[in-house]
Amino acid sequence: MQTDETSASPTKLRILAAARICFAQSGFHGASMKKICKSSDISPGTLYHHFPGKEALIEAIILEDQIRAFSRLEQHNSDIVGSIVKSLLEIRKEHLAQRALVIEIMAEGMRNAQVAAMLERKHDAIIAATQSRLFEAQQQGQIGKDVNLPSAVTLLLALTYGILVDPTTSIEISDEQRTKVFTDMLCGALHSPTEY
Amino acid sequence: MQTDETSASPTKLRILAAARICFAQSGFHGASMKKICKSSDISPGTLYHHFPGKEALIEAIILEDQIRAFSRLEQHNSDIVGSIVKSLLEIRKEHLAQRALVIEIMAEGMRNAQVAAMLERKHDAIIAATQSRLFEAQQQGQIGKDVNLPSAVTLLLALTYGILVDPTTSIEISDEQRTKVFTDMLCGALHSPTEY
Repeated sequence: MQTDETSASPTKLRILAAARICFAQSGFHGASMKKICKSSDISPGTLYHHFPGKEALIEAIILEDQIRAFSRLEQHNSDIVGSIVKSLLEIRKEHLAQRALVIEIMAEGMRNAQVAAMLERKHDAIIAATQSRLFEAQQQGQIGKDVNLPSAVTLLLALTYGILVDPTTSIEISDEQRTKVFTDMLCGALHSPTEY
Repeated sequence: MQTDETSASPTKLRILAAARICFAQSGFHGASMKKICKSSDISPGTLYHHFPGKEALIEAIILEDQIRAFSRLEQHNSDIVGSIVKSLLEIRKEHLAQRALVIEIMAEGMRNAQVAAMLERKHDAIIAATQSRLFEAQQQGQIGKDVNLPSAVTLLLALTYGILVDPTTSIEISDEQRTKVFTDMLCGALHSPTEY
């Protein structure tokens, strides 16, 4: 089954898309495997063949999110601050259901050791990738030499989560204003010489 | 019942403390009123007299959190950046169960319109108070005159939530390093003349 684990077959993608919606709508405990079958129009046999339980579904969803985070990191290599600002703005525009799902998985991770371990693996991988990206930018003079990279990485990760769960939908702030405050903040945190 | 609503009787406090633990451990749906009675050693009659249902408990918990957020805002009036950094560090030190509860309430707010409305009221109040605090600091020259305060406030709120839900427990970063990166970041975002 090794090849099946790494490739994303149309069936698996269909199941995961349905599982995302079910988990976001009904919560991890409220969404049954039966409901996920129904939403994805897949037989129970096929569902259990690909994912033996809800934990396996959550693990695959976390992995999809990790891959998406990596692809964000790889954009715009020449301008570290602009690249981070752009990905923070992209996160804000994620669909509300996707943001609800991230919160739901975090809530489950607080109670369920298996989910907590999956999240930790994901975070460790993202932290390592981000830190190596920042190191590269520091070598190129885009980040001040005296900036402590692990601190900067944890700040960025906290900010990413904060934006994902940000409940301030009632305030109207333009993308331009948001770009400005994010840029100023990052230039401060990273001692970046980028002028804005 | 008006006085009862605003005063915090020992019985109410005892119920709320038990409810916090039950919600954090079992989730909003997993924690029953019966279980909360048992944990707080309070009769069902007394519990329902003070809180007619789980939504009323969540509302009181959200209000307690709001009051705590206000008290953080009122500290250290002379140094806005130092004051914000201090409260961000304090949030990091909150008990894990408290942080789990915040996430649980947010997850419920994504599905339950009543809880979503409670959270929105809380955020609007915190945003208004923070903005007036930042305005005062801007008048005193602690924040650059060209800084857009609504953008800065939403950034701060996102950061607060990000730190509350921050899963990076595996990285060891000293308080000193964290203080430095938070201070640099805020000085950048607020165009604050504070030297560090």
